[in-house]
Order: sequence, then C-alpha cells, then structure tokens
Amino acid sequence: MCVCLPASDARREYPVDITEPYRGKKVLITGGLGFVGSNIAHRLAGVAAELTLVDSLIPEYGGNLFNIHGIEDKVRVNIADVRDENSMNYLVRGQDYIFNLAGQVSHLDSMRDPYTDLEINCRSQLSILEACKKHNRDVRIIYAGTRGQYGKILALPVTEETLKRPTDINGINKTAGEWYHLVYCQVYGIRACSLRLTNTYGPRHHMRTSRQGVLSWFIRLAIDDQEIPIYGDGSQVRDFNYIDDVVDAFLLANASDATVGEPFNLGSGAALPLLEAAKIVVEVCGSGRIRLVPYPDDQKKIEIGNYAADFSKITRAVGWRPRTPLREGIARTVEFFRKYRKHYWD
Amino acid sequence: MCVCLPASDARREYPVDITEPYRGKKVLITGGLGFVGSNIAHRLAGVAAELTLVDSLIPEYGGNLFNIHGIEDKVRVNIADVRDENSMNYLVRGQDYIFNLAGQVSHLDSMRDPYTDLEINCRSQLSILEACKKHNRDVRIIYAGTRGQYGKILALPVTEETLKRPTDINGINKTAGEWYHLVYCQVYGIRACSLRLTNTYGPRHHMRTSRQGVLSWFIRLAIDDQEIPIYGDGSQVRDFNYIDDVVDAFLLANASDATVGEPFNLGSGAALPLLEAAKIVVEVCGSGRIRLVPYPDDQKKIEIGNYAADFSKITRAVGWRPRTPLREGIARTVEFFRKYRKHYWD
Repeated sequence: MCVCLPASDARREYPVDITEPYRGKKVLITGGLGFVGSNIAHRLAGVAAELTLVDSLIPEYGGNLFNIHGIEDKVRVNIADVRDENSMNYLVRGQDYIFNLAGQVSHLDSMRDPYTDLEINCRSQLSILEACKKHNRDVRIIYAGTRGQYGKILALPVTEETLKRPTDINGINKTAGEWYHLVYCQVYGIRACSLRLTNTYGPRHHMRTSRQGVLSWFIRLAIDDQEIPIYGDGSQVRDFNYIDDVVDAFLLANASDATVGEPFNLGSGAALPLLEAAKIVVEVCGSGRIRLVPYPDDQKKIEIGNYAADFSKITRAVGWRPRTPLREGIARTVEFFRKYRKHYWD
Repeated sequence: MCVCLPASDARREYPVDITEPYRGKKVLITGGLGFVGSNIAHRLAGVAAELTLVDSLIPEYGGNLFNIHGIEDKVRVNIADVRDENSMNYLVRGQDYIFNLAGQVSHLDSMRDPYTDLEINCRSQLSILEACKKHNRDVRIIYAGTRGQYGKILALPVTEETLKRPTDINGINKTAGEWYHLVYCQVYGIRACSLRLTNTYGPRHHMRTSRQGVLSWFIRLAIDDQEIPIYGDGSQVRDFNYIDDVVDAFLLANASDATVGEPFNLGSGAALPLLEAAKIVVEVCGSGRIRLVPYPDDQKKIEIGNYAADFSKITRAVGWRPRTPLREGIARTVEFFRKYRKHYWD
C-alpha cells in the first residue's frame, strides 16, 4: 500500500546549501542531546558561530552524550531542565535561532505518569516562550510537534486542518505546546512555527526501550537477531521519515518567513503497513524474525488506527520533500547502530 | 442580527423534572462556590442526598460564600484546591456525579500568568481524573469547556467540528482539560462529557472585576449608573446564555448515556452584536450609558472575532434548548444584583 505523494527514488541534495542561513549565527537546541536535536547539531556544527545544546539528560528520555561524538569541540553543552525558567532566561538571550526539541515522547509513559508529561511538554514550553518574551522577542523558534496530536484518524491522508481527536495525554500536551508557540507568535511577535513529525527513525535514536520509536526498535531487535513482535495483524499503516529528511525540514522551516505562525505536517508520501516495514528491516539486516502478537491492553486503547500525512503545505512553503527511500534509510540506520551499538544498548 | 436557530420566546420548563436523576444521589461540584457551580447547587439542593461543594476560594476567582445563601444547610462545603490529588482522592470516593466547574476563566489573566492557568486548568483536571481512575471509575463527570477553545473564528455558526485556533493560553489549557476527560473516558471507561459554554451571565456571577463575564459586568456598571465602555464599534457578535439554561444543560447532559465521551456546544440561537446587548442592559436597568472606546492593546491581540454557536448536537442528544430570552435573563440578573449588591461588590 502506498498513499499520498510519491517519494523521490533516492536521496538528493537541495540545490542550495540549506545550512547557509545559520552561518555565523547563534543557535540554541533544546533536547540537544536527543535524537532530532543532536542530528541538527551535527548538521550545523561546522556552520553556526555558536551552537548551544540544552539537555536535562533525564535517564529515561532520549539524551545521550555519545550523540555528539565527533562534534564535541564545536558545541557547548549546557545541562539544564527546560522547565526551569531561570536557566532559560539566561540561555535564550542573544540567540538567533532556537530548535525546540525538548520533550517527553512516549504515549504509554504519558498515560502512566500524566503529571510528568504535563511538566515536560507544557510547563517547559511556557518556560522557554516566557524567556523569549522577556529577553529575546527577535529569535526564530521552531517546535517539534507530532502526529499524535491528531489522535484517532478517520480519513487519510491527514492534513493540518484535520480535526484533532487525541487518544492519549501526550497527544494533548504536545498540541498545547504547539499552540503556545503559535499564540506567542500572534500576541508577542515571536516568530514561531511547528513541524508535526510522523514516525522518525535513524542514527542517534534512543534505543534502550521500545517506547520512543517503533522502527528503530525493530532495527535493534533485527541487529541482535531477535524476534520482532508486531501487534495485531501488522496492517496498521505508518508513515516513516528518515532523520536526515527531518533535519532538512527543521533547517528549511526555521529560516523561512513563509512558515511563521503556522504548523506543518511531515510525511513520507510512502506510508505502508507496519508489517511491510518490519520485513524490509529483516531483509536489510539479514537477521531477526517477525512474530504477530495480540495488542497489549494499554496499547490497544490508545491505538490511533492508520496514519499517512499530507505534507504538501510544507512543500509549498519551503520546498521540502522527503528524499530518503525507506530501504535506504534503514540501511544507513543499521550501519550506524552496528558500528556504535555499545553506546546505545548493551 | 440574529444567527442560528431561533430561541424560544419565553423560558419554559421541561416536560419532565430534570433534577430527578439526581434524587438521593451523591453529587460533588468542583468550583462549587463559583458562578455555575453554585447555581447547580441551588437547583440540586432539595434533591441530592449529599451535595459536596469543593472550592479553593482563591480571592481573584469566582468563589463567593454568599453564593450558597439560602442552601447553607443542604450542602457540605469543603475548602480545598483541586490541584491537590490527595484531597481529591478522598472527595471523589462514592460520588455518583461530579460537576467539574473548577477553573481559571480569564483570558487576559492567562496571558499575564500562564503558569497559574496551566496549574488550574490542566494539572487540576489531571488530579481530579487520576483520583476518579484510582477510586471511582463508575462516576459520571461533566466538564465545563468554553467557546475560547475555538479561538479565532473564521465562519459562523461554530460547530463542535470547527477547527480550533486558540488565541490565548486559557483557550489552549481549557482544550487540554476537556481532552483529558475524553481520553480518560476512552481509556479508563470513566463516563465523561464536556459542555463548551459561550458567554454565560446571571445571578451569582463574579462581579468584582471585568474579567469574568462581559454582560454581567455591563449589568454592574448599569446598576451603578456608570459608563459602559465597549471596545471598537460594538459590532462584535456574542452568544449569551442565561445561567438557568446552562444549569439545565449540565443536569441533562450529566445524566444521559447519549453524551458519554462527547463535547457539546451551548448557545442561544440569538447571537447579537455586543452593542445591542449593552443597549438592552441600559434599557432594562433604566440607568448607565454606553461609550465606544478603542480596544486596549492586550485585548485586541486575543480578540476572537464574531461568535455564534450551533448547539444542535446537544439538542439532538438530550433535548436541551436555551429557554430564556436575553431581555428576560437580564431583568432577572438585575433584580438579583440590586437585591444582593453588597455581597458582590462595594
């Protein structure tokens, strides 16, 4: 099954250097030691004048000091909790760009501990935005939203106008976090936008638990030649983006006037059943095996159904398109984690 | 100007006694000393077996001990902060019905102090719902949402499916609070629903400041023969509900199986420009005078445009309709506050 727009056949570079707007600029990345944050840091390490990564390194979350392996000398790491407005008041000053990636991303964790999800995904965002309001209204800021904001999907593909029916606390709080950015843009003139990420996978993903990204988790299991459990019959459609494509989107969107005040979907144009994605993982790895298992009760209750995004809005705004076919992205991910396995799981 | 459905010409009673489902039951009202909560308490005082009102009596909010004047012997007042899950763990046990009215309702206050709005409108709701999840999954609970959840309105009338574009922090957090209820309903089987209130006015409204309800504020100014300032040209359309009609809606919705898991708009079917509403206030009072003034900057930035609700969904579900024409509702409100003025403002 393939829905929406066709993806390109192979990863191609953009005709212009999309890191150029960041040359010589001061850039702050919250969640900078996490999956998306650290990959943005790698892309900007040779370009930005100053690159500050803020991370709380909360053990269960995605922060991993190894994620900045190779660029340690080009970034400043500041361990701090983004909930703490005092730290943020200091850190946002003088920044030209903020990539606001700090967040709690697990749907199941948000149900088990809704207060922590509220703290990280709502209070933190207010703390960052209040700091910008007080000390740096000229900054550009981009927020990492999620397909979980849409919740239960009734029709595909999903556009930015699709009615939201969140199925879990994380989807609710991530929506609030996005809307805070858009309100601070409207009311205080802080130029913000949001990308609603679908399933993202690739190097530097959190790999210690299954809770932060299904495809990367499958890759871990396949690398270790283990059984890959898939809930139900595996027909649930998911829309996967390779991390490099997602980094492209963040760089393009945070540098463009065309995105200010708006949310944008990302997507692959090639959404497919989870079972099919898992088969590609096993083929690429040459190891691992798939087993269909019943849905656990807690997972079943927050299941969203099929998902495929219409990402034409961001294509129109800044020319972004996904450029990495799934098989190629999986191959690169496998290569990375085979090489650095010990830094991501035991 | 009149939009949507026609309102009835005069308040009529329902063919059945809508308090009957609550007879002999245990009922908890959060925000029970506030405007809507205390009016529900007055309606149920002679019917419910036990009626517990929880209120924090935060000075700037709507709680007022005089609001239970006349029913003091029929209700139990428990001063507590709904953010405190320990209190809620105790209070929700054994309740048959919860009317969940505790909230911060000022749009401007939510911009000046977004953290407090987050605490009251998000954390509190989680605290109440977690308490129900742990100690009383059989309870019926109804949440008080707001038209502010829709934010900037692009087309009238507004239905429950209208895309939300909140213009302030309060609208965002109230949406999160509503969605928490719907998620706890879906995931844990707690039978919840939500009413999205439009401008509600009437006896027992908070009258000390202008921030909690524009029409009641106009009534205060007219009673005191003062000038009524209206922003802009007064053409902004608002949809007013008299409190007794809103109480009807809460009683009908919280007792019906047809509302479980769903949000519902309230509305008047007779939305009108704010200037017209103010003229009726002056006519009914025989005092006060209207003056058009420019929008203050902070108000202008969160202005929603015109608002008129399509409330046909709740009519279909439980037969609710607004029954009090605006002029009649204003007359009753004026009568109440003339009589009890000293308990509401100096």
